[in-house]
Amino acid sequence: MLQFRNDYSVGAHPDVLAALAATNLEGNAGYGADGYCARCADLIRALCAAPQADVQFCVGGTQTNFTAIAAFLRPWEGVICADTGHINGHEAGAVEATGHKLFPVRADLDGKVTPAMIEPVVARCVDPHLVKPALVYLSDATETGGVYTLAELEALSVCCKAHGLLLFLDGARLGAALTAADNDVTLPDLARLCDAFYLGGTKNGALMGEALVICTPALQPDFFRVKKQRGAVLAKGWLLGVQFLALLERGLYWDLARHANAQAARLQAGLTAKGYGLLVPTTTNQIFPIVPRALLEELDRVCTYEVWEDLGERVAIRFVTSFATTQAEVDALLAALPDQR
Amino acid sequence: MLQFRNDYSVGAHPDVLAALAATNLEGNAGYGADGYCARCADLIRALCAAPQADVQFCVGGTQTNFTAIAAFLRPWEGVICADTGHINGHEAGAVEATGHKLFPVRADLDGKVTPAMIEPVVARCVDPHLVKPALVYLSDATETGGVYTLAELEALSVCCKAHGLLLFLDGARLGAALTAADNDVTLPDLARLCDAFYLGGTKNGALMGEALVICTPALQPDFFRVKKQRGAVLAKGWLLGVQFLALLERGLYWDLARHANAQAARLQAGLTAKGYGLLVPTTTNQIFPIVPRALLEELDRVCTYEVWEDLGERVAIRFVTSFATTQAEVDALLAALPDQR
Amino acid sequence: MLQFRNDYSVGAHPDVLAALAATNLEGNAGYGADGYCARCADLIRALCAAPQADVQFCVGGTQTNFTAIAAFLRPWEGVICADTGHINGHEAGAVEATGHKLFPVRADLDGKVTPAMIEPVVARCVDPHLVKPALVYLSDATETGGVYTLAELEALSVCCKAHGLLLFLDGARLGAALTAADNDVTLPDLARLCDAFYLGGTKNGALMGEALVICTPALQPDFFRVKKQRGAVLAKGWLLGVQFLALLERGLYWDLARHANAQAARLQAGLTAKGYGLLVPTTTNQIFPIVPRALLEELDRVCTYEVWEDLGERVAIRFVTSFATTQAEVDALLAALPDQR
Amino acid sequence: MLQFRNDYSVGAHPDVLAALAATNLEGNAGYGADGYCARCADLIRALCAAPQADVQFCVGGTQTNFTAIAAFLRPWEGVICADTGHINGHEAGAVEATGHKLFPVRADLDGKVTPAMIEPVVARCVDPHLVKPALVYLSDATETGGVYTLAELEALSVCCKAHGLLLFLDGARLGAALTAADNDVTLPDLARLCDAFYLGGTKNGALMGEALVICTPALQPDFFRVKKQRGAVLAKGWLLGVQFLALLERGLYWDLARHANAQAARLQAGLTAKGYGLLVPTTTNQIFPIVPRALLEELDRVCTYEVWEDLGERVAIRFVTSFATTQAEVDALLAALPDQR
Repeated sequence: MLQFRNDYSVGAHPDVLAALAATNLEGNAGYGADGYCARCADLIRALCAAPQADVQFCVGGTQTNFTAIAAFLRPWEGVICADTGHINGHEAGAVEATGHKLFPVRADLDGKVTPAMIEPVVARCVDPHLVKPALVYLSDATETGGVYTLAELEALSVCCKAHGLLLFLDGARLGAALTAADNDVTLPDLARLCDAFYLGGTKNGALMGEALVICTPALQPDFFRVKKQRGAVLAKGWLLGVQFLALLERGLYWDLARHANAQAARLQAGLTAKGYGLLVPTTTNQIFPIVPRALLEELDRVCTYEVWEDLGERVAIRFVTSFATTQAEVDALLAALPDQR
Repeated sequence: MLQFRNDYSVGAHPDVLAALAATNLEGNAGYGADGYCARCADLIRALCAAPQADVQFCVGGTQTNFTAIAAFLRPWEGVICADTGHINGHEAGAVEATGHKLFPVRADLDGKVTPAMIEPVVARCVDPHLVKPALVYLSDATETGGVYTLAELEALSVCCKAHGLLLFLDGARLGAALTAADNDVTLPDLARLCDAFYLGGTKNGALMGEALVICTPALQPDFFRVKKQRGAVLAKGWLLGVQFLALLERGLYWDLARHANAQAARLQAGLTAKGYGLLVPTTTNQIFPIVPRALLEELDRVCTYEVWEDLGERVAIRFVTSFATTQAEVDALLAALPDQR
Repeated sequence: MLQFRNDYSVGAHPDVLAALAATNLEGNAGYGADGYCARCADLIRALCAAPQADVQFCVGGTQTNFTAIAAFLRPWEGVICADTGHINGHEAGAVEATGHKLFPVRADLDGKVTPAMIEPVVARCVDPHLVKPALVYLSDATETGGVYTLAELEALSVCCKAHGLLLFLDGARLGAALTAADNDVTLPDLARLCDAFYLGGTKNGALMGEALVICTPALQPDFFRVKKQRGAVLAKGWLLGVQFLALLERGLYWDLARHANAQAARLQAGLTAKGYGLLVPTTTNQIFPIVPRALLEELDRVCTYEVWEDLGERVAIRFVTSFATTQAEVDALLAALPDQR
Repeated sequence: MLQFRNDYSVGAHPDVLAALAATNLEGNAGYGADGYCARCADLIRALCAAPQADVQFCVGGTQTNFTAIAAFLRPWEGVICADTGHINGHEAGAVEATGHKLFPVRADLDGKVTPAMIEPVVARCVDPHLVKPALVYLSDATETGGVYTLAELEALSVCCKAHGLLLFLDGARLGAALTAADNDVTLPDLARLCDAFYLGGTKNGALMGEALVICTPALQPDFFRVKKQRGAVLAKGWLLGVQFLALLERGLYWDLARHANAQAARLQAGLTAKGYGLLVPTTTNQIFPIVPRALLEELDRVCTYEVWEDLGERVAIRFVTSFATTQAEVDALLAALPDQR
């Protein structure tokens, strides 16, 4: 069975696992108060050219999202996000469970939020009988594989500053985004433009772990307490520091993402050549081919994938590649799929 | 530096790590929908003689506590616990953050809750202007290393049933408890007497992970949704199933706990022989010697430990042993400590 | 200045105020444990032909909505409502602040929810990574003055029962709805079809107060505790019982609503005759004429009203009548508005 | 039946009711945006010599407490209060339901909090695994009728400022406190020393209503939104402004409190003369005589009261007087009670 369902169906990259094994029994302070986390935080600050930033390691993406949002907002404040955003559609109401309303805005197929989507929400919510929009949630790459350009992020930052909104970027697939062919954004750009963002480990070579970068000093105090309160403090916290060091110290993180993107690009190109349409073309590790409904049965025998959207006679599906996807697997999948021309 | 600060300062037992390595790249369904979690849940049900139980793997103890309590209670219901209980004193208000009041009761030095402590809270809260006590939270072993006897748990279960209270047992150190010299409780006893309890992995050989056993069918529906909502669903969920299988399939879990207890007993006996008093004697992997305040400086050069309670001229400290504590380390610590007779 | 901004800009109907004055100093038990509340609850049960119902008096509509929803739902459950619904757009995130997600569905101009809007949400949320829809929130009259027919409510009830959804009806303007010309619904119908609903006092003759009828016995236990917890227990609770008795014992409640509707109908007919369009025609006490933008300045000198929706060159505004609106006021307003033909 | 159970068992003082009647049908803006609320806020600012203060009217005490605390604190912050404090024992977990932990400290019989009680909580909670104490909750008068002296409040304010704690004073019975024989505190003192406090209307002559004074400017922004979110915005908000104006414009508020205190003092003196002991002597409108258990049955025939504390053979009970308590009622109660000498 070819694995194209998601980018979290195998464990860690062997180098990451080796780093865990090498440090397994050495003895470290708990709760992230160890030398690996400290060193890794320094490294991330350096990579981001953000000496003032606080780096906080969490275990998973949903947890990072709701912990950060709960920490940053006041009770009467809400979050603007794409209607397709992960916090709106895939996290079982985690943000609302912390008491905050979401304002989902209708995003385009690429899943991006724009100032033009934000402005009407802000304008409407001047009325104090409504929740006050206070944070814009993006993901890069987006839920549908889109990549923000530097110009788009600059515009969002200007819009947010003008309206007193925090800018928060979910980077569960940040590796894929920053290594995409059409990307022109760097970590220092993110640290400059966002109030907080994270580098996802789970979907790019780690067993688990997300490295949250809190750029804005006013958002940093007491963050450990809120992490603890939300179950986001791993007792053996060094496990996260060790993994992110293994990923970031010699650029493995970017290599793995580049690899995943390349396999996705090969698959997308191959499918297009075979006459498959795309729900939306992407440059990251998720692709969204459109297939005849009748093909699904055959697909189920060949590979794992996700049904993305029902289009009537046809169905948009999602294939995801990861650091572990081989060219052979991509080619096998392409070979198994019938020509649509 | 000798490590006696806690039981989560090294990684996983080598066999557990080996199991992770062996399965690392094989490809598994995410979010716990894999074969390892399924097989491990079956194993735990069998060990508990509780075929009706639902087994849910979470990442950490605080997370398991507040997720279960949030799932089990209604908004106006609260939790009776020892004032020394972990949820009251060490989790940054995680339970309250889900909206539920704690009723801490004054426990004895052994950290145990008794029906006599529960009854007055129940009696007082008949008044509907008060929160309704609805769940009793225990830990076994307790925060101060105590072990519940079967008779004590039976009495608590009777008391809880009489008052419509759920009985929930935090088993972060359940291995240490169930292998203690004075223990007469079994997993089937727990499954019969508790509405839910968990087997802690983090403090007994796993990288991370707690296996929650929900015994009462009425508490089982939709538990996955609340886990997801609270950030307790690990994307690579099989990591937890694989680890618990490695720990439980051939009894390693109990061997490791027995080892930790034995080292703690050796240390406690050695300290007593040298004239150290004990805040409370224990049979599990935490011990609480009383030392002269002046000794702390010397201790800081020899080992890690925790200051537990200030007693004026003297101080109660905590030493914790783990699967990784060697007899040589215990003997080295004993040798380093001056005689108090 | 003619008052057409809303139906809560004068105090109580004189008969209601007289009842408060008559009982002012007599001495009553606090927190709703008085004879008036008890007698009024009996009366409401009788009017609803629902002997099993629990009647709970709250102070305001937002409070009643979030208290009931917090009481009825589990943490992972959410609420389906019209996007124009009061809980979505006018209550500052009160429901989300209790931890529950809203699923706003695109309603027609009449503000009504239909089974066809509910079904796709239910279908999508079979996925346990999503919040579970568990309650449908309606208002009758709707935010835009619409009135549910008995057939519509029957269909909604069937749909809700089929999908395990509770049916909750916000009756802040229930008087206006049940006395509307096109209404065919009775209180016993509501008690039979809804799990809970309320009769609004604030907008129909009381100083304040909403009478919540909890029809489904499983939702009744401990409701007082959650009311207390959410600040919805008035210390001098009999004030609510006294007012609702004054309104309901001799039918004043319906007379007042009928009067408000009649004035609105007169105003709507007069405006139509003068050539004004309507955003949506209504039969209750809110009407939504469309006026040229240039007219607003003149309107501001004549009367109070609310701008409802910007339509470009034209603007939809809202006029609301109440028990206190006189025919002379309606005629004065009509006289003041220029002909549009 | 003589009414001594509480100070909220009759409606409003006749002058207050008259003010409501006089303004009943005049037409006012909703939600507190009316002239009465504005004028009353100005008056309260003047009485407090606090031109910078924000005055917000709420409906009830529990609601005011949890709304203010939810507005002022961040999620990881908690509240220090007396174990006998109203928020700890009488509000059904309302503060915890907003996500905040209480740190109840063991108060003396007078119900007062002191810096010596606060310091250990602050010291212990330096540990970031614990909730951060961030607000001290007092009531004046206390739950057991105690009155803070100016020196005590000054010391508390110094302590709070030193530890970064907000000082919040529940003034549900502030009238009784500030008119007590042994009081030396003024409204300007409170405005200078507290971050926020309120003047209770419900227990001193109003139908309902509490006037919250937010002294610290940083706590003021967006307070209306959080009030709306918590159900604390009364639709007919002017009802609160009108009542407080009637109470405060010519000093009626203080006269009523003085009257209630005088009746309580007469009753307390009479009981002492008859040989009854006191749980704690008070100078406000609550008194706490100790009676033989056998007397309760007789008491039940004579008057309403509350059982306060079981003392074995004897029972401490609570009598409360109000603006409506007459000297004749006090004398009748005294006459009905047997001599204990």
